[in-house]
Amino acid sequence: MTSLDQPKASGYRPPAVPDVDVRGFWGERIDAVADRTAMILYERCVAAGMFDQIDPARPVPPVRMPWHARADGSPDTVNVQMFWDSDVAKVIETAAYALYRKPNPDLEAKVDAIIDMFAGLQLPDGYMNSWFIRMQPGQRWTNLRDCHELYCAGHLVEGAVAYFHATGKRKLLDVMCRYADHIDAMFGPRPGQKPGYCGHEEIELALIRLGRTTGEQRYLDLARYFIDARGQQPHYFDVEAAARGADPAQFRHKTYQYNQSHLPVRGQTKVIGHAVRAMYLYSGMADVATEFGDDTLTDALKVLWEDLTSRQMYVTGGIGPAASNEGFTDYYDLPNESAYAETCAAVGLMMWASRMLGRGPDRHYADIMEQALYNGALSGLSIDGSRFFYDNPLESRGGHHRWTWHRCPCCPPNIARTVAAIGSYMYGVSGDGIAVHLYGANTARLNVGATAVTLTQETRYPADGRVAIAIRLDSPASFNLALRVPGWCETAGLSLNGQGVEPGEMRGGYIHLTREWRDGDRLELDLPMQVRALRAHPAVKADLGRVAIARGPLIYCAEEVDNDADLNALIVPADLSQARTAELPGLAGTVAIEIPVQREQWPQRAGKLYDSRPPELARTTARLVPYHLWDNREPGEMLVWLRTGQ
Amino acid sequence: MTSLDQPKASGYRPPAVPDVDVRGFWGERIDAVADRTAMILYERCVAAGMFDQIDPARPVPPVRMPWHARADGSPDTVNVQMFWDSDVAKVIETAAYALYRKPNPDLEAKVDAIIDMFAGLQLPDGYMNSWFIRMQPGQRWTNLRDCHELYCAGHLVEGAVAYFHATGKRKLLDVMCRYADHIDAMFGPRPGQKPGYCGHEEIELALIRLGRTTGEQRYLDLARYFIDARGQQPHYFDVEAAARGADPAQFRHKTYQYNQSHLPVRGQTKVIGHAVRAMYLYSGMADVATEFGDDTLTDALKVLWEDLTSRQMYVTGGIGPAASNEGFTDYYDLPNESAYAETCAAVGLMMWASRMLGRGPDRHYADIMEQALYNGALSGLSIDGSRFFYDNPLESRGGHHRWTWHRCPCCPPNIARTVAAIGSYMYGVSGDGIAVHLYGANTARLNVGATAVTLTQETRYPADGRVAIAIRLDSPASFNLALRVPGWCETAGLSLNGQGVEPGEMRGGYIHLTREWRDGDRLELDLPMQVRALRAHPAVKADLGRVAIARGPLIYCAEEVDNDADLNALIVPADLSQARTAELPGLAGTVAIEIPVQREQWPQRAGKLYDSRPPELARTTARLVPYHLWDNREPGEMLVWLRTGQ
Repeated sequence: MTSLDQPKASGYRPPAVPDVDVRGFWGERIDAVADRTAMILYERCVAAGMFDQIDPARPVPPVRMPWHARADGSPDTVNVQMFWDSDVAKVIETAAYALYRKPNPDLEAKVDAIIDMFAGLQLPDGYMNSWFIRMQPGQRWTNLRDCHELYCAGHLVEGAVAYFHATGKRKLLDVMCRYADHIDAMFGPRPGQKPGYCGHEEIELALIRLGRTTGEQRYLDLARYFIDARGQQPHYFDVEAAARGADPAQFRHKTYQYNQSHLPVRGQTKVIGHAVRAMYLYSGMADVATEFGDDTLTDALKVLWEDLTSRQMYVTGGIGPAASNEGFTDYYDLPNESAYAETCAAVGLMMWASRMLGRGPDRHYADIMEQALYNGALSGLSIDGSRFFYDNPLESRGGHHRWTWHRCPCCPPNIARTVAAIGSYMYGVSGDGIAVHLYGANTARLNVGATAVTLTQETRYPADGRVAIAIRLDSPASFNLALRVPGWCETAGLSLNGQGVEPGEMRGGYIHLTREWRDGDRLELDLPMQVRALRAHPAVKADLGRVAIARGPLIYCAEEVDNDADLNALIVPADLSQARTAELPGLAGTVAIEIPVQREQWPQRAGKLYDSRPPELARTTARLVPYHLWDNREPGEMLVWLRTGQ
Repeated sequence: MTSLDQPKASGYRPPAVPDVDVRGFWGERIDAVADRTAMILYERCVAAGMFDQIDPARPVPPVRMPWHARADGSPDTVNVQMFWDSDVAKVIETAAYALYRKPNPDLEAKVDAIIDMFAGLQLPDGYMNSWFIRMQPGQRWTNLRDCHELYCAGHLVEGAVAYFHATGKRKLLDVMCRYADHIDAMFGPRPGQKPGYCGHEEIELALIRLGRTTGEQRYLDLARYFIDARGQQPHYFDVEAAARGADPAQFRHKTYQYNQSHLPVRGQTKVIGHAVRAMYLYSGMADVATEFGDDTLTDALKVLWEDLTSRQMYVTGGIGPAASNEGFTDYYDLPNESAYAETCAAVGLMMWASRMLGRGPDRHYADIMEQALYNGALSGLSIDGSRFFYDNPLESRGGHHRWTWHRCPCCPPNIARTVAAIGSYMYGVSGDGIAVHLYGANTARLNVGATAVTLTQETRYPADGRVAIAIRLDSPASFNLALRVPGWCETAGLSLNGQGVEPGEMRGGYIHLTREWRDGDRLELDLPMQVRALRAHPAVKADLGRVAIARGPLIYCAEEVDNDADLNALIVPADLSQARTAELPGLAGTVAIEIPVQREQWPQRAGKLYDSRPPELARTTARLVPYHLWDNREPGEMLVWLRTGQ
């Protein structure tokens, strides 16, 4: 055990990242992050000038700085951003997980140098934010609504915790504890304190993490305070705006729904506003619910969960269809080509889902966590870990490609830290049991109460649904082992030491096995993966008369490189019994799906816009690949929702 | 003959409005305009405060004035608009045609009073524009790009010509001739003249109308000058902006494509920018081509026509999909629910098409004229003539309804003047022939050379495709009669005095009959109207897997009032042989279409967003009504492009 993130009471908590050695599908992805992405992120922060803002040893930069050239070669510029601390923090967090995976003295030295900058920035009272110390001194804590001040602190806390776990070095953790103490003194209900909270949620979940790591109850209490204060009247953002002489009505995003402060959180029933903000809030609420056993929060979260997942989520687990507010719009408004579906938002949904599992295993949450992970989140990172999607449309006419960087560089480190930490999402551990939420080749060293348990999964998942789980124990021990049966699997099979086991008690979509386990026990779980055609709710206009092809947890798509152009001319039959799987060596050895389809052809049209002649239909075979892998080969069209016949 | 709009040389020109007595389908619509719309338009101009701006006897109003209340009852305001002269001008033009139809001393007195205002406004040098005389004195002719100055003049010219024809009163015509003389002196290639043209085309076609009415060649020449000068370098709008100390790059609409001045007109190949502007430009170009026999313009127009009608036109004849520029976007970008498709733009397309017929009958143009007329244009006016559509989407979820007025009140008088003048669109007359472009019950008094010909159409068109045409002559006369066979009609039948006639020579989709006609000759044309399912070019993504149902010139739609909600659950079969027509008494006796269809049902879905179970299908009958009649009954969903099975 290297982690201090241990369960304190009831409830299930994730293992620490280094407690799970990941191999197989995810092992390769983590290696790409450790070998390439972590250093790429660092170098792009350098190139973007971020350390010019942060490093107290350098001159204060102008707000507008040179940036790399435009596509046409002309020089470009970038504005220093008040949220850059948070991006650097996620780079530190990614580097920390990379260092868990593989020692890298060069990377570690670079992170130590960044930490020295932050330590050098910190003021005697504990305050530590590069924007308000260097770019806008004197204005700290005057605009929580817009300025990402507590959000930056939250990400730095997460980076500090991860780096402490990775290296044992306390410097950044100590900096952030002093800063958290300052924040704790500044905000709260007592006279002289500000009854505020951040316009971009993040500090809440970070304080829970800090509290769990340090054992300091004040941090947990402060997280709860921020959750409870949100949206109360008189509205803090109104009061704060008036105090700085601004008209509260002149809010750029018009409504406090944007940052989920339009109502107290327990009264919120619709998932609304900026998608990442919403996910981080709900993650923090779930953490507080777990930590304090607060069912009033859990009840609110259940309503919000249903609202999101039954009306506002892409089949990829992408969320937030609109670029205008980077967030939610109307129910069932899920356009495919213009989908915003920010990588960070899918990561946020994973974070929320994983925290909903804190009250116990329930595939209601774990299925969606897996759906977002394998599709809308993982799509954000190229196979080799060097390029990134910010928005994740479900259809492209050929003009949407991965970025090497983005002006708002939140997504690359967010998906990188999530991939590198994937082991911690795979399990939940309580005082008397282990829940297996995600399958994948790995070895996990877990403590159930005082019992050390080593679980080893051998599997090709997600290429194949067979999973062998070997249990190593110093001595026989009784505990509950809960194995998730995904909702997409209709007939799971299970054997123990070669003997078939009736799944027996299923609760919340998990097989619960409570028995005395012995060293060398071996479970074999079979989750057959049929090719499925998913249909959207008929109110989702963009998907009418269309199907999304899925296998196991993976949503598939057609790419032009496999199918020629005009993907919308392909018509998938209602009967998928002729669908075949095939290994695709050119694409990380993935399992492709091949389906006999029809292709519409219009030989007689000759430029006519409207015509009463129907198209001719030709037989062909469509090849589909996992959505998360798209745009890793030649550029071209991409389509998730394929047209279907009746 | 009451009109001076007579052909001067070769080419076909429309008859004057009073030369065609319209009955039947269009007669009822004209009566609604004469009985209600004309006065409604006047009264809404009063309510909007337009005459406060125009009347020189009143105090100059503030730019912002009270307006009628918002939906919630709170007071609202409206800005005085620099283009209000044009809206009042179209009200005058509508009133003129209404007075052709039915004497109305009250309406005539009101128009006379408006004309007195304009006459009183006119300055000694002939200038006459209420905005620049009263609201921004001293700034005339400094911003042709943005200020609609020549555009207003053009509409007033059209109003003046129509009112002169209706009443014989020359007052406004004389005002506008003096103003046209002023414009003629101000603009042109000579030293001391401005080489300018208007940012909103209209003056060009208006000057042609004025030249034809007055016989004054200078007006025709000035129209040609404005056409020829457009888009030449140095760019007039650049020069003009610099002259008033403005940065030419700070153009609100960013590119001169917006007003079609990005290139000289003969070099333009893509229909682009603001849709109404484009249509008015091409109308003026076609008029100049006809008047001057200029095939360089005709050639350019043919390219533009093909560009528009094969890539950028809704099946309703609506054009300009985007609200952002009130105009054109990418090829095949024709979204249905968000279609802007302004009524004025469909009217403009009719105007352009009718002018393309000036070089001779050709259904290439007449078919589109009819398509725009019966669908995307006529939809702009409710059956009773009291309510208006500004934008004309092809799908509505139930929230799109006719307005009683609009802040930008261009469409109501535009569709009203067009309906009231429909007789002039029905025929083309040359020195030796008559072309029948549109069918409908009417009696037309036409002069072919020196021969007076009276044509009477008896028909229920567009409810039925049988048309009887009776010819009255003082004495036998030889001339060509060209009868359009619409492209949608596969097998036209024709008889003369009860004897079948082989259609024989067809040119440009017209049956040409050249013979000696005798008084009492009677033609019977049969244009069978099959129910047709139109399919869009596969590049029109919004229409993939969908059909638009048509019969004769009418495009049909489904409304919720006939079909319950969820119109997108209806699946039209590929085979329409079971489709039936039925009179619908509740909707102006129109011909409805009833089709056996399937309706998707999702009984097991229970709130799930994605599900692998396909829908169940139930049999039902869909009732469709002509698109132009939608939203005349209970509000609800509407859908033109219905889903279809393979």
